[in-house]
Amino acid sequence: MTTSLPALKNAATQLRIDSVRSTSEAGSGHPTSCLSAAEIVATLFFSEMHYDAKDPRNPDNDRFVLSKGHAAPILYSAWAEAGLFPREELLKLRRIDSDLEGHPTPRLSFVDVATGSLGQGICAAIGTALNARRIGSEYRTYVLLGDGEMAEGSVWEAADIAVYQKLDNLCGIIDVNALGQSQHTQFGHNMDEIAARWKSFEWHTIVVDGHDIPSLLKAYDEARATKGRPTMILAKTLKGKGLAAIEGKDGWHGKALKKGEETDKAIAELQKQMVDGASQPSVPGPRSKSRAEAAADYSKVAAPAYKKGDSVATREAWGVALAAVGAVDSRIVALDADVKNSTFSDKFEKIPNGKERFFENFIAEQVMVGASMGLAARGAIPFPSTFACFLTRAADFIRMGAISFANVKFAGSHAGVSIGEDGPSQMALEDLSMMRATHGCAVLYPCDAVSTERLVVEMAKHKGMAYMRTSRPKTPVIYGPDESFPIGGAKVIRQSSDDVAAVIGAGVTVFEALKAYDQLKSEGINIRVIDAYSVQPVDAKTMIEAGKATGGALITVEDHYPSGGIGDAVSEAVAAAGFAVTRLAVREVPRSGQPDELLDRYGISARRIVEAVKQLAASPAQPGARRS
Amino acid sequence: MTTSLPALKNAATQLRIDSVRSTSEAGSGHPTSCLSAAEIVATLFFSEMHYDAKDPRNPDNDRFVLSKGHAAPILYSAWAEAGLFPREELLKLRRIDSDLEGHPTPRLSFVDVATGSLGQGICAAIGTALNARRIGSEYRTYVLLGDGEMAEGSVWEAADIAVYQKLDNLCGIIDVNALGQSQHTQFGHNMDEIAARWKSFEWHTIVVDGHDIPSLLKAYDEARATKGRPTMILAKTLKGKGLAAIEGKDGWHGKALKKGEETDKAIAELQKQMVDGASQPSVPGPRSKSRAEAAADYSKVAAPAYKKGDSVATREAWGVALAAVGAVDSRIVALDADVKNSTFSDKFEKIPNGKERFFENFIAEQVMVGASMGLAARGAIPFPSTFACFLTRAADFIRMGAISFANVKFAGSHAGVSIGEDGPSQMALEDLSMMRATHGCAVLYPCDAVSTERLVVEMAKHKGMAYMRTSRPKTPVIYGPDESFPIGGAKVIRQSSDDVAAVIGAGVTVFEALKAYDQLKSEGINIRVIDAYSVQPVDAKTMIEAGKATGGALITVEDHYPSGGIGDAVSEAVAAAGFAVTRLAVREVPRSGQPDELLDRYGISARRIVEAVKQLAASPAQPGARRS
Repeated sequence: MTTSLPALKNAATQLRIDSVRSTSEAGSGHPTSCLSAAEIVATLFFSEMHYDAKDPRNPDNDRFVLSKGHAAPILYSAWAEAGLFPREELLKLRRIDSDLEGHPTPRLSFVDVATGSLGQGICAAIGTALNARRIGSEYRTYVLLGDGEMAEGSVWEAADIAVYQKLDNLCGIIDVNALGQSQHTQFGHNMDEIAARWKSFEWHTIVVDGHDIPSLLKAYDEARATKGRPTMILAKTLKGKGLAAIEGKDGWHGKALKKGEETDKAIAELQKQMVDGASQPSVPGPRSKSRAEAAADYSKVAAPAYKKGDSVATREAWGVALAAVGAVDSRIVALDADVKNSTFSDKFEKIPNGKERFFENFIAEQVMVGASMGLAARGAIPFPSTFACFLTRAADFIRMGAISFANVKFAGSHAGVSIGEDGPSQMALEDLSMMRATHGCAVLYPCDAVSTERLVVEMAKHKGMAYMRTSRPKTPVIYGPDESFPIGGAKVIRQSSDDVAAVIGAGVTVFEALKAYDQLKSEGINIRVIDAYSVQPVDAKTMIEAGKATGGALITVEDHYPSGGIGDAVSEAVAAAGFAVTRLAVREVPRSGQPDELLDRYGISARRIVEAVKQLAASPAQPGARRS
Repeated sequence: MTTSLPALKNAATQLRIDSVRSTSEAGSGHPTSCLSAAEIVATLFFSEMHYDAKDPRNPDNDRFVLSKGHAAPILYSAWAEAGLFPREELLKLRRIDSDLEGHPTPRLSFVDVATGSLGQGICAAIGTALNARRIGSEYRTYVLLGDGEMAEGSVWEAADIAVYQKLDNLCGIIDVNALGQSQHTQFGHNMDEIAARWKSFEWHTIVVDGHDIPSLLKAYDEARATKGRPTMILAKTLKGKGLAAIEGKDGWHGKALKKGEETDKAIAELQKQMVDGASQPSVPGPRSKSRAEAAADYSKVAAPAYKKGDSVATREAWGVALAAVGAVDSRIVALDADVKNSTFSDKFEKIPNGKERFFENFIAEQVMVGASMGLAARGAIPFPSTFACFLTRAADFIRMGAISFANVKFAGSHAGVSIGEDGPSQMALEDLSMMRATHGCAVLYPCDAVSTERLVVEMAKHKGMAYMRTSRPKTPVIYGPDESFPIGGAKVIRQSSDDVAAVIGAGVTVFEALKAYDQLKSEGINIRVIDAYSVQPVDAKTMIEAGKATGGALITVEDHYPSGGIGDAVSEAVAAAGFAVTRLAVREVPRSGQPDELLDRYGISARRIVEAVKQLAASPAQPGARRS
């Protein structure tokens, strides 16, 4: 033990004082949710955790994830107490000129993932714990949850997977303060009922008084000594602990004390709790030194081994490419949700060392994405994948991933009505919308195996989030193996000097556009056909050129609902040039049927494209709109 | 017991035969996942459940929810066996001309909610069970899950809430066939481990041999006799049961038998399992007659009681309006996820009988939305609400809600950067995108208290899904109490004969547009200001008129990311008229700060609007784009 008991007590009191003072200064925040956790955080930061307090990003530091993100002020106070920055900085809490935001984000060097959407931090903690194994480090991961969070299903997905992965380097602590936002929690202080749940999920479970420092220290010892499974410490606490007038009282959630008398009185009350003669808290350094990451050499990825005209599903080409990039970059890991034989992520599992870098999550998409965020925060490059429609299950995680600037590479297979007979529940028709609304996410939608393989390499090298949409049916290979596909590009695959319209597709609709081209050509009508494989960023230059060449006759066609997809992407890209876009998209809830039947019925087949081209060509370009 | 044991055995065999035959004819589907459940379904449909087999929509019928939706063929076979339609119809499985889709949807009279995204059916079943209480009916709800589904966190949200609601009219059955899609499930046939989890969540839990008919019947008896809590029956089964070559074997998930010899042999094998001398199965009618729903009289909703210039947050006006419509329409129920004091749904809880129609879900958005879908399927009009950003937690449920044509009315509060200091994790900046990509969903975003109240009435009366986005800060009332706000409309709130541009906002940006109007006016520049309170459907006519009046100088401004929101909605609406749209939107991951600071920093303040108008006005209308 590096810090004495009196010093730990004082550290807890200091965290309380700083949490109250900073939230009062900000005029908002959650002081009472900090106060309940003061002993937990003080003992973790100044006795249990091993880390370099001057180098929060050290790969061997123990990790702390604040799953109850609204208690951010106590996290910031702990790092100030550890000496990372001066205490006065805390008074900038929640200000636009400070990174000490209302909830923690990785703008701060000591935050791995943004929290504030409850039930996510524990999923990310699984990722940081898995990463320790990946890099051969002894670091441990600690995650602090609120008791209200246990209502979130994602917590139980995490509970399940942490045990499946035997994560004995993971220790959770639940701050059971018995008060939610709007009322008492479901279980209050019934610790046995809560413990029964964790025990049934096979966690080593310890119940303690969360304000008793020796009990907390003993629980951490027990957690460290527990092998083969994670530990959950259930800490019975009082919300607002330390302030007699507020302690354990409902109605104080998310309320700062009033600056001035109310705050001054509270701080005086806390200061009286300081004990004399305590030494300064100190922090032990990292437990181990991890091995250095091997450098990745992407030049070793072989060119795609397809011939033009081969028939290959892009989902399968994605699996081939994932295995190929995984073989040259040890940072790459793959995560599945029990569909690896449909998405073809099982090809990754089969490469040498693939099994160790392949994380099965069964049918639990939230923890798959949450763990990916944690892995990415510690230097891995995670490729989580499932059917595209089921990525929506993790939409809130993806949202928080964007706020975390997470380097995660998603793939969603079985996009659109082209899956056929399985019906609408399995058809992603809103995934492009979801991923385009994910800030900073590259959205890729290749049509053939060559472009798929090339784009997987681009995704792996890309800094930040990326999403690839793949298709179920086999499609012909149309590109040669040396073609390049930069993110943000597009391919003009048919053009002439007298194109009456430009048809912009991606994925399966590229082939409908090509069929439409052939038919129109046979009638003496030329169109431009563009493969918009990069939906975000979209290739504005190519689209505007197409607008100029066709008198503004731009038609998008996508196996997706009209909102938020390719039509909207192209539309925004050409708006400054004054062009409008005609959108062919799926405009009904589709039903089961054969892929071709469905493409036609829902308006995105070659026949429908031919109709749209003829209709647009019959309405001559007119003045009226603006160009910059 | 209405059906003899031999007849039940034969019914199970017949369901097997029909499941094999229909999937073989379709050439795809999940016969083995049907075969494991044959005795469960046969005993439910022909002994345990009370319903009118000729009238599947009867409000007092027992409900059956197939949470493992991929076993659809056995559900269809059961209804054929019950006499609802001729058995030959089953051979149209998965065809475009049949409603017997790959996974069940409410296109079928006997399906309450679409399933096929695992872990959702049990949440919907909570809704149908709550509804029995609401209408005073004795009907019971049965929900069949697969064992793989238990990995989904939503199942544990449901487990929690069903106990909290003391739903002893709910009985779950898990078909523990031990095989997932890509591999063995996590627990295989370790029934004790699975039972421990359900027991820890306080369900009455029964383990049975799922192929033993008397054991199943006894378990149902026990479930019916259990008071004050729901029952989960864990049925140990074999995937592919009945076909010796397939039974319990991995690698058969989602594979139809080959038509011809393979199928013929299988059917012959099953037919040998028929026993002689069994009577026909029969079905007992409903357990009770529920009371009729009281007619709703919306003319009794008082006009909004605000004066122009009052300062009221739309979230609060939404709470007032919810209480008002709830008072005149007993079908309306409200669902919360522990933020009722922030969204103001607690106003509904306080009306007479409000407590009985207010369902708390703690911090569990998936079960909140899933239960709403079940309630809606049985005639309730559910209003689930939480912070708009946390609705993304239920994105997959909302997606399935659209496929279910569910009459659910969502509200999301605390939209956009205008919430201020809490930071990006609490700011919905993609909710409009998510809800616009939800087929058939009306998306409403009022700016003041009067329009909010009027639009809540419109939502309640609207047939189908609807979403209202509300704001945290107080905004001035700008409309008189008699103004009407039809869904699909917009309000032109400033206009002149020489508008140089039209600024289209909604919610908080309406006021930024009004400030911009004043400033520009003082400089002698006129603009049109439009309140696009109906984002979907958007008022195309008003937008096109604005385009014509301003030479196509259309500017949208929204407290949302650029993808999928107001800019995209207006853009598509005016595309056919050849107009392009300039979009002001939030283009970075925002940070904490004061609302006004954030609106300005992220480009959607009055100042930024003034800049955009001046820039656009300086670039004269040019020919080039097309008009229809």
